[in-house]
Amino acid sequence: MASVDVPVALLGYGTVGAAVHRLLEESADEIERATGHRLRVTRALVRDTAKQRGFSPDTGVLTDDFATIRDDESIQVVAEVMGGVDPAGGYVLELLRTGRPVVTANKQLLARHGAELFEAAAAGGVQLRFEASVCAAIPVIKVLRESLVVTNVHRVLGIVNGTTNFILSAMEGGHSYADALAEAQRLGFAEADPTEDVAGLDAAAKTAILATVAFGSRVPLEWVDVEGIESVTLDHVAAARALELHVKLIGRATLAGDRIDVRVGPALVDRHHPLAAVEGAFNAVLLHGDAIREIMLEGPGAGGIETASAVVADMVSIVGTTGTGFLQNDPVWRELERLPAGELSSPYYLRLEVDDRTGVLARIAQELAAQDVSVARLVQQPADGHAVLHVITHEARAGSVDAALAAIRELPESRGEASALPVVSDNGVEQLGWG
Amino acid sequence: MASVDVPVALLGYGTVGAAVHRLLEESADEIERATGHRLRVTRALVRDTAKQRGFSPDTGVLTDDFATIRDDESIQVVAEVMGGVDPAGGYVLELLRTGRPVVTANKQLLARHGAELFEAAAAGGVQLRFEASVCAAIPVIKVLRESLVVTNVHRVLGIVNGTTNFILSAMEGGHSYADALAEAQRLGFAEADPTEDVAGLDAAAKTAILATVAFGSRVPLEWVDVEGIESVTLDHVAAARALELHVKLIGRATLAGDRIDVRVGPALVDRHHPLAAVEGAFNAVLLHGDAIREIMLEGPGAGGIETASAVVADMVSIVGTTGTGFLQNDPVWRELERLPAGELSSPYYLRLEVDDRTGVLARIAQELAAQDVSVARLVQQPADGHAVLHVITHEARAGSVDAALAAIRELPESRGEASALPVVSDNGVEQLGWG
Repeated sequence: MASVDVPVALLGYGTVGAAVHRLLEESADEIERATGHRLRVTRALVRDTAKQRGFSPDTGVLTDDFATIRDDESIQVVAEVMGGVDPAGGYVLELLRTGRPVVTANKQLLARHGAELFEAAAAGGVQLRFEASVCAAIPVIKVLRESLVVTNVHRVLGIVNGTTNFILSAMEGGHSYADALAEAQRLGFAEADPTEDVAGLDAAAKTAILATVAFGSRVPLEWVDVEGIESVTLDHVAAARALELHVKLIGRATLAGDRIDVRVGPALVDRHHPLAAVEGAFNAVLLHGDAIREIMLEGPGAGGIETASAVVADMVSIVGTTGTGFLQNDPVWRELERLPAGELSSPYYLRLEVDDRTGVLARIAQELAAQDVSVARLVQQPADGHAVLHVITHEARAGSVDAALAAIRELPESRGEASALPVVSDNGVEQLGWG
Repeated sequence: MASVDVPVALLGYGTVGAAVHRLLEESADEIERATGHRLRVTRALVRDTAKQRGFSPDTGVLTDDFATIRDDESIQVVAEVMGGVDPAGGYVLELLRTGRPVVTANKQLLARHGAELFEAAAAGGVQLRFEASVCAAIPVIKVLRESLVVTNVHRVLGIVNGTTNFILSAMEGGHSYADALAEAQRLGFAEADPTEDVAGLDAAAKTAILATVAFGSRVPLEWVDVEGIESVTLDHVAAARALELHVKLIGRATLAGDRIDVRVGPALVDRHHPLAAVEGAFNAVLLHGDAIREIMLEGPGAGGIETASAVVADMVSIVGTTGTGFLQNDPVWRELERLPAGELSSPYYLRLEVDDRTGVLARIAQELAAQDVSVARLVQQPADGHAVLHVITHEARAGSVDAALAAIRELPESRGEASALPVVSDNGVEQLGWG
């Protein structure tokens, strides 16, 4: 096939944009081998064309006027790497509607406005690809859409935020939450304002996108039940370790019958579970499906060059499949309902502070049984004149666990904490020891 | 896009073939959503059309005559799931040459005759896809070719044989090699004649294919330095455990400068390394590249339905990209040389049985230093009137380690064993303890 020159444009020229440009130049031969085309950046939208940059494009490439990109009919693919919902969203919509394929790395844009974006892509008859919006270079979107096309994925479990995983790993090493966060900030893993990460908002957007693609039904961001890691203490980490569990921030999307549950929050992961071994700032996504049992993808979930690598792969896929019907369509093809809050079942770890006196165990057991929460293991520890109970339950409805905890808090024997964390274990909970 | 009926054929109708047929029927809607096409099996080649089968195709689909498939011009994709090099190889060549795209799950065919096959595919102007030939449903070929297209992968490390991983996991649980093998056979993970697996031949074919795709240069099966697990003993496993290492059969492909080293053999894996957590019959492949640092894919590496899932994904990719230039070409685009045996560097674990007397340590240290093998850690254990030395080295050339071992075996203090296993650790070897 004759090589064809393909002009492309970038919206944004920060760390990711410059890295996309550099990869396209350095890997022009690889791309030509894969597609028969050479991709060349002819325009890049920036706020300030005069700013000094590490990787400088040719004169005339940088522009601060979106219209010069929109109106340049030679441009065949546009990569949106500017971030933020506004004005990026408007630009992407306009490009798609006028028949320009777009690659985006923007998880908030996708999670909030996916429906509109795909409608615009359909109207324009072009592809919208978004691999880089979830876990950077880990190719989970392509794998879900192309490799697992016949697999009926019914559960997605992920460590999709490197900052919180780094902090929790550091806490397992004995550091306090505050120290671990400060260290993450020092190393550049956490922003000065870490809320987006530690409150679970970043993980929520990624998990919503994963659920949408995996289940083929739009999952609005508002459906995601989100809890961050701010309330995780060294006590939780120590109790987890004694039970041979690791504390992780887990994004979990479940297809239960034809209803969907999506949640992000701290969970305790069995040390034999594949996600337990994911340390530091790495990400991993575990896909459970009918034909494949489970497939896990693990790697760096952030970083400029890693994100750029995913953006370029999507650009290459678009150039390589234009003119076919392959996967240009919205991943959404059905409309499923949300599972009511409280319906999802999981084993749980309960931590209960109670008076250390005769009969208290019986009362606790009674309240759990009243809500159909069955105890798999229980360890009682003395603590400053009272007792801490560590309970691992069998699979129980989240709503039942909440109701049992509420009842336990009302007991005269209750002394403060009565909290629960889900347990992630493929091997059941019976094997968990207390070391 | 209007739905188009796409007749396809199967070569072979055993466990995998029947599962491909079932997946195509059950997932016809998913496939139509992804491609706009409905794939329908109209022919399947078998040896005996009269044989009773669990999943029975319609009358007239089964045939024992290859020519009825070859000459049926309506058939648009053929999946080769019969296995074996002959006659499968001849059939595939003929189909490709006459312009029929082929999907194959046949690792031995690919590893032995890849060059010919891709030449035929180029002559016929059609795609040859082979995801299922390596680790079943784990989509490592698609990820390497499409997601990591600009990534310069320079190292591939894999646990690519589930049988041996199951046996080694069982040995870590205290079972002898013979007992673990018998258990694997009882559970159906190992064949009655387990040679292909335990001697590393299956892993060698997969690692050769991975190296070929990752480095873009043909790696003949004869280049692969293969050692099986038959010589792994409970002593090795116990010593590994004391050093917080796991014994695994590792396939390793390295691009060193512009030369290639591919080997399969037992290695000791640091317990913090991602491959250490891969247990039982699971497979995992770790890809090291410039832009991505490392990406690991893990999942079931065998099984009828898992393999079928990968075959179907490839068929869907072919139907979805026909008419474009996308990835129809041979993954091989350059001709690199083999790294001379002995040149590859790695940390090593050495196990040396020596007399327990003064001066022996100095002699050993001298022989290692003479070959430029630098000791990171050394533990001496008494054993029945002699001593066992456990040595972890810094990175050392394989050839230097062999030379040092040969010299040590000649020492009057040597008492039998002087053996080496490579150590897989991303964190350097200094942190390894002796528990």
